[in-house]
Amino acid sequence: MCRWMAWHGQPVLIKELLFDSPHGIVDQSLHSRMGAETTNGDGFGMGWYGGGDGPAVYHSVAPAWSDANLRELAEHVQSPLFLAHVRAAIGSPVQQTNCHPFRHGDWLFVHNGYIADMAKIRRDLMLALDPELFADVHGSTDTEVVFHLALTHGLEQDPIGALDRTVGFIEAVAEDHGIKGAVQATFGVSDGTDLWAVRYATIERPRTLFASAEVDAIKHLYPDNERFRRATADDRLIVSEPFSDLPGVWHEIPESTAVTVRHGGVLEQQPFRPATVAA
Amino acid sequence: MCRWMAWHGQPVLIKELLFDSPHGIVDQSLHSRMGAETTNGDGFGMGWYGGGDGPAVYHSVAPAWSDANLRELAEHVQSPLFLAHVRAAIGSPVQQTNCHPFRHGDWLFVHNGYIADMAKIRRDLMLALDPELFADVHGSTDTEVVFHLALTHGLEQDPIGALDRTVGFIEAVAEDHGIKGAVQATFGVSDGTDLWAVRYATIERPRTLFASAEVDAIKHLYPDNERFRRATADDRLIVSEPFSDLPGVWHEIPESTAVTVRHGGVLEQQPFRPATVAA
Amino acid sequence: MCRWMAWHGQPVLIKELLFDSPHGIVDQSLHSRMGAETTNGDGFGMGWYGGGDGPAVYHSVAPAWSDANLRELAEHVQSPLFLAHVRAAIGSPVQQTNCHPFRHGDWLFVHNGYIADMAKIRRDLMLALDPELFADVHGSTDTEVVFHLALTHGLEQDPIGALDRTVGFIEAVAEDHGIKGAVQATFGVSDGTDLWAVRYATIERPRTLFASAEVDAIKHLYPDNERFRRATADDRLIVSEPFSDLPGVWHEIPESTAVTVRHGGVLEQQPFRPATVAA
Amino acid sequence: MCRWMAWHGQPVLIKELLFDSPHGIVDQSLHSRMGAETTNGDGFGMGWYGGGDGPAVYHSVAPAWSDANLRELAEHVQSPLFLAHVRAAIGSPVQQTNCHPFRHGDWLFVHNGYIADMAKIRRDLMLALDPELFADVHGSTDTEVVFHLALTHGLEQDPIGALDRTVGFIEAVAEDHGIKGAVQATFGVSDGTDLWAVRYATIERPRTLFASAEVDAIKHLYPDNERFRRATADDRLIVSEPFSDLPGVWHEIPESTAVTVRHGGVLEQQPFRPATVAA
Repeated sequence: MCRWMAWHGQPVLIKELLFDSPHGIVDQSLHSRMGAETTNGDGFGMGWYGGGDGPAVYHSVAPAWSDANLRELAEHVQSPLFLAHVRAAIGSPVQQTNCHPFRHGDWLFVHNGYIADMAKIRRDLMLALDPELFADVHGSTDTEVVFHLALTHGLEQDPIGALDRTVGFIEAVAEDHGIKGAVQATFGVSDGTDLWAVRYATIERPRTLFASAEVDAIKHLYPDNERFRRATADDRLIVSEPFSDLPGVWHEIPESTAVTVRHGGVLEQQPFRPATVAA
Repeated sequence: MCRWMAWHGQPVLIKELLFDSPHGIVDQSLHSRMGAETTNGDGFGMGWYGGGDGPAVYHSVAPAWSDANLRELAEHVQSPLFLAHVRAAIGSPVQQTNCHPFRHGDWLFVHNGYIADMAKIRRDLMLALDPELFADVHGSTDTEVVFHLALTHGLEQDPIGALDRTVGFIEAVAEDHGIKGAVQATFGVSDGTDLWAVRYATIERPRTLFASAEVDAIKHLYPDNERFRRATADDRLIVSEPFSDLPGVWHEIPESTAVTVRHGGVLEQQPFRPATVAA
Repeated sequence: MCRWMAWHGQPVLIKELLFDSPHGIVDQSLHSRMGAETTNGDGFGMGWYGGGDGPAVYHSVAPAWSDANLRELAEHVQSPLFLAHVRAAIGSPVQQTNCHPFRHGDWLFVHNGYIADMAKIRRDLMLALDPELFADVHGSTDTEVVFHLALTHGLEQDPIGALDRTVGFIEAVAEDHGIKGAVQATFGVSDGTDLWAVRYATIERPRTLFASAEVDAIKHLYPDNERFRRATADDRLIVSEPFSDLPGVWHEIPESTAVTVRHGGVLEQQPFRPATVAA
Repeated sequence: MCRWMAWHGQPVLIKELLFDSPHGIVDQSLHSRMGAETTNGDGFGMGWYGGGDGPAVYHSVAPAWSDANLRELAEHVQSPLFLAHVRAAIGSPVQQTNCHPFRHGDWLFVHNGYIADMAKIRRDLMLALDPELFADVHGSTDTEVVFHLALTHGLEQDPIGALDRTVGFIEAVAEDHGIKGAVQATFGVSDGTDLWAVRYATIERPRTLFASAEVDAIKHLYPDNERFRRATADDRLIVSEPFSDLPGVWHEIPESTAVTVRHGGVLEQQPFRPATVAA
């Protein structure tokens, strides 16, 4: 059920991370090693900052591995901050409005995982949205509802706090319906300046999530690696699964953890604890 | 905003009505004469009875005029009862889940027109759905919400009565929001046995709607017409706009009117008066 | 690189073989066990006889596992003779005109495998086509050229002989260009009455191909199997890989072999030896 | 049959010309005034220079008016030189490989019009291609063959001379087949530095083609126009039909004429006379 990646660093041609990395996100669309599904062929999405106002999004129902337009964009668009997502649909249709990242103003949102028994609680979750946001849910994924709940709970003011409250609320609603293991998730969020990521699951082991190590440490480990030589101290990647098997390059983000990536390659980590919220 | 047609009669190859009629629905997708838009190129949909359990639906985001699969199906599928719809989107995206006809069990539903200011009242209308149906709304059109409201109001027991109540309810909700001219519509509905159609608008002139005349009368008028010679007394068409300019072949369905087509070419007509319903 | 199946037998709802079989062709699109690629997500195609004139074809760029229209058709179309194909593209784009089966008049053609270094010899092969057929090649696959070469070499009069000559010709052209291992193939062909299949490769082991056993033998082996109980002596399947692991149900078609399936479940086998043809 | 536009000037957000111009190319896709067809809904294509190596192309089978990705790109991609094309297919399928512009190295090519009876002469034209280019023809349009013929005849060294020879050759081949009025065309070509356009038809009036006037003259005529105030002396547009009805802003390019647009807004005009070439 999906793989995603986020880049925060020097401006790069998007293809360097999508296509030129040995086990990049496009390769993961065909051959995921750590995902719940090996194939993530139910659409692709990408959102990037830079050029025009606010983030651009590209949503495609073609599998990432065969999308000629994606290859074109990747080869010609540069960005210092972008998210990409390959989807393995679990029930909802393959259509552009179900492709991540979802967008609201300057904000982008991606998700790997699911809300359990979503059809049973969809109504209750939708009713809890800020009424102004109700008609902004254009697709039929669980993720888009989660995103609008998070916006309702203050994502734009306090991203991690809003996700705490959102997850807590979903868990409370699910419990009311007798649903176990409500939330299975890694989330990625950005406003174009910072990047946030969360790894959490109500009861099971959450989906995998990794951050790239500090660039200096990577260069020290692999002084002859041509790709790493171009890296700068600003560069950080958050990924569902590592692009390579090189020891020391990737750090697993622990369960029930949120991270913040700021300008300059700063990576901060904090516990992620869903707030107690009444359903 | 959309054109549709419905066939109730002898089993025919679908192409006879979609492609071989002089101004059939596919021609109307490019060159509508009476529609709000001349071009209805934002997807195609068709639902037919016969073969397998319940109705089949085919939904395509390609314009009807260029869809190779549609041409194949039309040339190889026979049906005694089917509905086809070409869409001119007004706001909601072009995706299969926004293509008509919508389906629930044995029921098919098509619509030409709109609910005014839908984004403003979408939440109130969705809340009024039977909660069991809430998660069955997969797309983002106004029509799909209307259909599920009609199901909530008893479409399967009393189609025209349920539409009376549905339209009345929508008008009441719209009035609460200060919206004028809530409903602009022709509707087509079938359960695989009968076919119902409604022409109604809250304040403006409703979209056009026509029924074909009795086959005997048509044959009498055009004794040498090869196509009409194959017609039987069972055959009836309901269409957004006539397939031909031949006088006497098409009867305009009056405003604020519902019709029922039954086996044997029976066409019944009755006034359509939205029920007074509290919002 | 692709998986295909062909049914010749009693009329069945197509879904029985596409979706309801345990490891049917749609499951193979996601999880092929014997194919060169595990994922065959680069489009789907199906051709069936019955209804209208000649075979119908349905070509879709969506992966078979997520194509809502395919599921609809499979649940509502019955046929006594059909071919289905899931594609793993190797170079040529994912577009409907590259989906199998290819059609000419009453003839359908599917292929699993490749012509080596096709770009180098495409021109020579196209020049060898009957000039009347040149503009009928609408896509960019190797298979469509092979099919039109076979038509040029008399497919409609002598299917296996024409394939002998076609393969021999391709091998001769390839050799002139210094290309080794020109042809890697299983082919499926039908005219709506009979069904032919070929398993052959110039130098390597050809792609896998299997025929279902005689229905009586299968019923004898599995007297309690509900699905097999509905089978009749007319029924034969030719498949790239078995739909099940049940011993005795599937017979591997040997390398360099052609088979013919005729009405009544007759299965004939003969050696396949490419003819010596001047390039 | 198609409308196109080309921009050569200061870097602009692509949306300014595609969406924000009163009768821009996207509006022309729905409501062309001067085209052979009012609807150009059979796919969209765009090629732009700037960012990455060589030109980027975006090809979409969705009508331009409903393509969400196109709107995103237009709002976020800036370019000093780009071509856009809306297609009305005449026979060949709607697929990305049939969308203009076609590309070879740094070169882009668009076409409005047709080669008469293309199916009859396709083989002869393809045989005349540089054999190295034969397998580069991936789609099934006449235009892509014309482009590769022009490359064969030296487009990269002498664009207008190569088009002279190409058109002359096509006319000679057509005449051999007894085909009248072989070529109906406006062509647009660029290498990323200059822009060339041709207006020509063998016997009929060629499709319309216009160039924008000098910016100083336009500003003098419309001193209060906000859009024109942002224009610089570098800016030139070549369009199938004018974006506005303002007198003095657009000059019709005469029949049988080629124009060259160079840096600085230079517009040069010369007669276009097909060379005499043996078929």
